[in-house]
Amino acid sequence: MRTQIDKAHDLAERFGGWKDGVLAPGGVKVSDIAAEHGTPFYLYHGEMIVDRVRRVREALGGDVEVTYSVKANPNLAVTQVIAREHLTGAEVASSGELVVARTAGFEPEDIVFAGPAKTDEELEMAVREGIFAVNVESVNEINRLAAVAERHDKNIGVGLRINPAQQLMGSGMRMGGTVGQFGLDEADLEEAVRRTLAHPEHMTLRGIHVYTATQVFEVDPLIEHCRNIFELALKTADLAGRPLEMVDFGGGFGVPYFEKLEEFDLERFGAGFQELLAHYRTDPRLEGCRFVFELGRYLVADAGLYVTKVIDVKDMKGKTFVTTDGGMNHHLTATGNMGQVFRKAYPILNLSRSPGEGEPVALAGPCCTPLDMFGTNIPLADPEPGDLVGVFYSGAYGFSASNLGFLSHPNPAEILIWQGEARLLRPVGKPEDVLKGQEALV
Amino acid sequence: MRTQIDKAHDLAERFGGWKDGVLAPGGVKVSDIAAEHGTPFYLYHGEMIVDRVRRVREALGGDVEVTYSVKANPNLAVTQVIAREHLTGAEVASSGELVVARTAGFEPEDIVFAGPAKTDEELEMAVREGIFAVNVESVNEINRLAAVAERHDKNIGVGLRINPAQQLMGSGMRMGGTVGQFGLDEADLEEAVRRTLAHPEHMTLRGIHVYTATQVFEVDPLIEHCRNIFELALKTADLAGRPLEMVDFGGGFGVPYFEKLEEFDLERFGAGFQELLAHYRTDPRLEGCRFVFELGRYLVADAGLYVTKVIDVKDMKGKTFVTTDGGMNHHLTATGNMGQVFRKAYPILNLSRSPGEGEPVALAGPCCTPLDMFGTNIPLADPEPGDLVGVFYSGAYGFSASNLGFLSHPNPAEILIWQGEARLLRPVGKPEDVLKGQEALV
Repeated sequence: MRTQIDKAHDLAERFGGWKDGVLAPGGVKVSDIAAEHGTPFYLYHGEMIVDRVRRVREALGGDVEVTYSVKANPNLAVTQVIAREHLTGAEVASSGELVVARTAGFEPEDIVFAGPAKTDEELEMAVREGIFAVNVESVNEINRLAAVAERHDKNIGVGLRINPAQQLMGSGMRMGGTVGQFGLDEADLEEAVRRTLAHPEHMTLRGIHVYTATQVFEVDPLIEHCRNIFELALKTADLAGRPLEMVDFGGGFGVPYFEKLEEFDLERFGAGFQELLAHYRTDPRLEGCRFVFELGRYLVADAGLYVTKVIDVKDMKGKTFVTTDGGMNHHLTATGNMGQVFRKAYPILNLSRSPGEGEPVALAGPCCTPLDMFGTNIPLADPEPGDLVGVFYSGAYGFSASNLGFLSHPNPAEILIWQGEARLLRPVGKPEDVLKGQEALV
Repeated sequence: MRTQIDKAHDLAERFGGWKDGVLAPGGVKVSDIAAEHGTPFYLYHGEMIVDRVRRVREALGGDVEVTYSVKANPNLAVTQVIAREHLTGAEVASSGELVVARTAGFEPEDIVFAGPAKTDEELEMAVREGIFAVNVESVNEINRLAAVAERHDKNIGVGLRINPAQQLMGSGMRMGGTVGQFGLDEADLEEAVRRTLAHPEHMTLRGIHVYTATQVFEVDPLIEHCRNIFELALKTADLAGRPLEMVDFGGGFGVPYFEKLEEFDLERFGAGFQELLAHYRTDPRLEGCRFVFELGRYLVADAGLYVTKVIDVKDMKGKTFVTTDGGMNHHLTATGNMGQVFRKAYPILNLSRSPGEGEPVALAGPCCTPLDMFGTNIPLADPEPGDLVGVFYSGAYGFSASNLGFLSHPNPAEILIWQGEARLLRPVGKPEDVLKGQEALV
């Protein structure tokens, strides 16, 4: 079982290792990046993302498509790095993500729009762009989408996002979430197919989409889950009386952020899925069908590093507290403030003193709340003011998932390591940014 | 014991009651606001804020100062409404908040800067502006601040933020937070005083500041806590050999967001505190001293309403799910994703159908995660697509505390009800805003 420090050191090596005792992602020392661009910053490693995308494609086989879930990291350049691989499509969950996907270079025919509560403006944008499928969440949404397509005199692809009957969930899979508000109740499937087919000039039934889970680590239940999705697809094709063009299996491959979590066995899952696919793909009801996994977190999480500067080191009632210039306001998930019941620490290192270990300290950000804490027992090597601290696994749900305006600190920068250079994607914010876009009372 | 629905109806009346069955804050129907400016939006009621500020001042008495904790709501116009009362100062926790406070009209001599991990840039800004006090968090910060003041050849006021020995905390007070990383260990007080006085040309010891707690509802322990702070102030004056100019008692008066919480008894606390003040203020060690409470949440929380539009209503396995165009991405605290172990629902009403009650529904936002849920048993009256749903107690830690970029939905608007008009403070965002400030990979 690898400790958090083991994971941090492994990731540090994958980022490019150390130079003069300082982490040097892609050969560029983080201290040089900090000197040039300021702190705090997110650092994304482009080649690590490309490697991960290729490894996923290889494991799943050439007949399986992978769409990038833009929600994981909607940074434009990160999305461009993935789009340039020409190996994946994009799965978007909002009008903003559709803008990012198109700007990054994804073609409309490779884009799927999924998500509850799509507004009329979003449905219109999807129809205008002519994306491959809008994955609808209710019968009501089918009617709304049909009305929009009719108004624009266009034909839009439809995926039925199904909230399956409970047997799909009861397989012992360690689920990261619950089903909740997502998709169509499977009991409404027949009605949903009927309504979709009722608008042949304005709607094309592409197939189905099933919300899986998030942070899945167990391979066998996931394969079993995929088998159930294949069966649901066949049932849908029967109801429609025609073959499906798309089966979207969701995603959810786990990232081992925390103590006691180990890597998801991608190769074993891929082999198992390919076997399953060989069994089903010859069925005429799936002839010409696109088989899709949507992955976000799994493609980008390990390629991101959040870097913040130590401002103070002090003792308080016998405990050492290290405070930094960025915290929960820049990295909400790493401080345990989004969906976690108990705070668990990400792999964290002192990037300025390495590769060493140290006494456990409490590592806190700059916000005036006890919630702003990366961990209370982080073994940080000899922290001193000015040192750079790195939080690993920060490529997904970092910048975009954080409450950047909380306490009105300047935003962190975003930087891409690409072809051995550190490229500034977004500069550190300024104090006066807080006034942007606001009207004063006159 | 008032239910959440009772509280919601009371707040609705305070906002201005109903017109044609629709909530009409300050006489303006929310449906008219939505038609003109779009959804979702935050609505702040200026006169409710003014009333609250005046009531607090009256309860605490004219000799007690109140500073507005800008962190609660750094919206410029909201801060202006408070600044125009000329009754309070401002407490800021970042360079951005200092910009807001100054722009809103607070004078430097009424501004205090508190917060862990202040950067050199922030200390410099405080020195340049000549604010009343920087409340320092460690002996190390005193040294850094002295160096900055010396470099600028200015004199800066210093408050010592003290993390008191534990007896101050053990009084049975229901604490909303823990002490954690804040302030100077009381054991270091003598050293801190000595260091501050060692730079007479560049530093002036103003006094002390004690972090109290957040969401305090019990009056007697809080008064006892204030007594302890007075004693700590006298001890500090003795150590300094001179009277103090400031004692900052923190704040933390509770807002009854949730079931089973009732209003903080402001009048009883005020009477008790005035009695305490009468006892201590004649002490020569507190001659001419400013006695300060810093309040944020308590001044603005109840004057804010978050309004979001119903997009879909659907049944899922026997449960009714209502989805809206805004959720956790706009209002993180109301979905229980910041510091709560269990989600508890805020007072919520269907603003388009009132004043009625309905069957409990699950109320979810547009984000693709089970975390995006305002509550699973909200008694919403007859919800239908297009209805406007209102989340009360949304004036503090709403817009600025939310992870607005999560899933890249457009930002909500901010609107102020002021003198019977709805004034647009910040428009609803656009999908393409997601690209702002980003460099593409070329």
